[in-house]
Amino acid sequence: MIERCKENPIITPADVKPSREGYRVLGAFNPGAVRFGDEILLLLRVAEGCEPREGYACVPVYRFEEGRSYPDILAFWLDDPEVELKDTRGVAYRGRNYLSTISHIRLARSRDGVHFTVEDRPFIYPIDEREEYGVEDARVTFIEGRYYINYTAVSRDSWATALAVTDDFHTVERLGLIFHPENKDVALFPERIGGKYYALHRPNNSGFGKASIWIAESPDLIHWGNHRCIVRPRDNPWESVKIGGGAPPVKTDEGWLIIYHGKGEAGYSLFGLLLDLEEPWRVVRRGATPLLTPEEPYEREGFFGNVVFSNGVVEKDGRLYIYYGASDETTCLAVADVNDILASL
Amino acid sequence: MIERCKENPIITPADVKPSREGYRVLGAFNPGAVRFGDEILLLLRVAEGCEPREGYACVPVYRFEEGRSYPDILAFWLDDPEVELKDTRGVAYRGRNYLSTISHIRLARSRDGVHFTVEDRPFIYPIDEREEYGVEDARVTFIEGRYYINYTAVSRDSWATALAVTDDFHTVERLGLIFHPENKDVALFPERIGGKYYALHRPNNSGFGKASIWIAESPDLIHWGNHRCIVRPRDNPWESVKIGGGAPPVKTDEGWLIIYHGKGEAGYSLFGLLLDLEEPWRVVRRGATPLLTPEEPYEREGFFGNVVFSNGVVEKDGRLYIYYGASDETTCLAVADVNDILASL
Repeated sequence: MIERCKENPIITPADVKPSREGYRVLGAFNPGAVRFGDEILLLLRVAEGCEPREGYACVPVYRFEEGRSYPDILAFWLDDPEVELKDTRGVAYRGRNYLSTISHIRLARSRDGVHFTVEDRPFIYPIDEREEYGVEDARVTFIEGRYYINYTAVSRDSWATALAVTDDFHTVERLGLIFHPENKDVALFPERIGGKYYALHRPNNSGFGKASIWIAESPDLIHWGNHRCIVRPRDNPWESVKIGGGAPPVKTDEGWLIIYHGKGEAGYSLFGLLLDLEEPWRVVRRGATPLLTPEEPYEREGFFGNVVFSNGVVEKDGRLYIYYGASDETTCLAVADVNDILASL
Repeated sequence: MIERCKENPIITPADVKPSREGYRVLGAFNPGAVRFGDEILLLLRVAEGCEPREGYACVPVYRFEEGRSYPDILAFWLDDPEVELKDTRGVAYRGRNYLSTISHIRLARSRDGVHFTVEDRPFIYPIDEREEYGVEDARVTFIEGRYYINYTAVSRDSWATALAVTDDFHTVERLGLIFHPENKDVALFPERIGGKYYALHRPNNSGFGKASIWIAESPDLIHWGNHRCIVRPRDNPWESVKIGGGAPPVKTDEGWLIIYHGKGEAGYSLFGLLLDLEEPWRVVRRGATPLLTPEEPYEREGFFGNVVFSNGVVEKDGRLYIYYGASDETTCLAVADVNDILASL
């Protein structure tokens, strides 16, 4: 039913120019996706580390100075007793943690939806302390004539969801954090329902319960309230740990179609979910089994293996183009008829 | 400078009638506080457990049926191999957790601010699954003629902050969850600033960083956005673990006065903080040392010792009546001149 593109992975780190000398691209994955004119645009998450340097641990950082921000490199001398290596993810120095990778959002453009040209420069990158550890996993939603982009903003204060808006994919206006930490996997509905905007979101509860899909409503896309938990993990190998929303919901005659991800002991997979058109907090149907699980070598091995994760889908002639990150490293494509997905739920 | 009331603790569990036969009151603490006519009202957090029953582990639960809710008791036979005791906090049965205590909000009324009469019945209690494990730590703020009450709603989906409103402290209208999990220690500012409502809140990040005080803004008190982290823990015995807002901010000539709590290895204490009147996300001054630490026996020992925690203050003739929970068990009072507190910051 769902067919992987024969050219998968369609974008790899080798296709992406580092954003700075001394950086190297480790991942080009988890893209947001949208039609823009006669193009399909992907908003890639580009994760970068530093080129290795003998005797040093090098980490990428952003500097913020007088309204300007730029990428930089910190090099820690490994013989310094105050330098402490933290697994593969970073370095601690004098009690402060530095991550070994940092992400920004990069545009890639295509006319056929399969062959993409990746731009040379970052599109959305950290501009202040709320984003100091990177911006990740963009979703883009066309709402009332403008393109709203939400993404995960990572900082010393944890991770939260930021909103930005663009008309032309050149200039971007920041609209602040719309969901406080810890929250990611936010998907804006493309139109108002009963006069209100809606979003799916995913608080990361460490208290009771498991990380689940919530819905919130807003009068203006900036301010959000009436949070409700609507879909929880199930006890199966693909969902038992946590679940989260994916790309913006796709409107169908039968309801809002959501491609969400689940995490279980077997890895990350994709499921289908149908929400009521008028009351989107009501679940109409939910796939009993995953639509897509990691099977191909590029899905099973990579920066972080056994992961398929989608935050960008585009509908084209009744078919759903599901762009997805594989193994937190590459961008892939799978295509399915919308009606086939609906019938499978 | 700050003076404890000689009659502390002014309310104890013995002063509170259980809300159901078979329940026993374990705590009457962490009150919200507000002037109402010529009274001072406290909104007590009343924590209840079950009377012990030989051979059984009994836990309090709320039942929700057809729009009605009522407290009930579940008794687990200790010889059942599927019953598992979880430290002092609860019971697990067939993979589900039940807590050994549940909280509701109870009103207490006073004319002098020291001697209170506790009402016989709960004021705010769980009415649906979003509150199934209890409602805790109310704050009440008088805004534009109405009394807004925010409180922690605890459920299988973790804890979040709910908003309600009342005009008369008899009927209460629920306004939904205003901050998704995990979030507590929410304090609404009593008036609009530059046309917007503001709230302090406290996301509980388990990722990077430590739980800190954030600010958010709203057009309507229901929907919140532009979240910003404004005050972080400091490296001292009273704040090194986490901090959180307390009672609603008190307006002074020098700024918004906040009595916040810090948690460190020494326990929970109270600090003073001054935020800018026009730009409340800016810190004007912050006390270097606590205003109040657990020193008295009732503050050092109890249900959970070494805790002073305030979410209700009332200004009266230039003096601040700081109501506070002691050891998660009783309600106490400390009084200080507002000017003395300001001078100490």
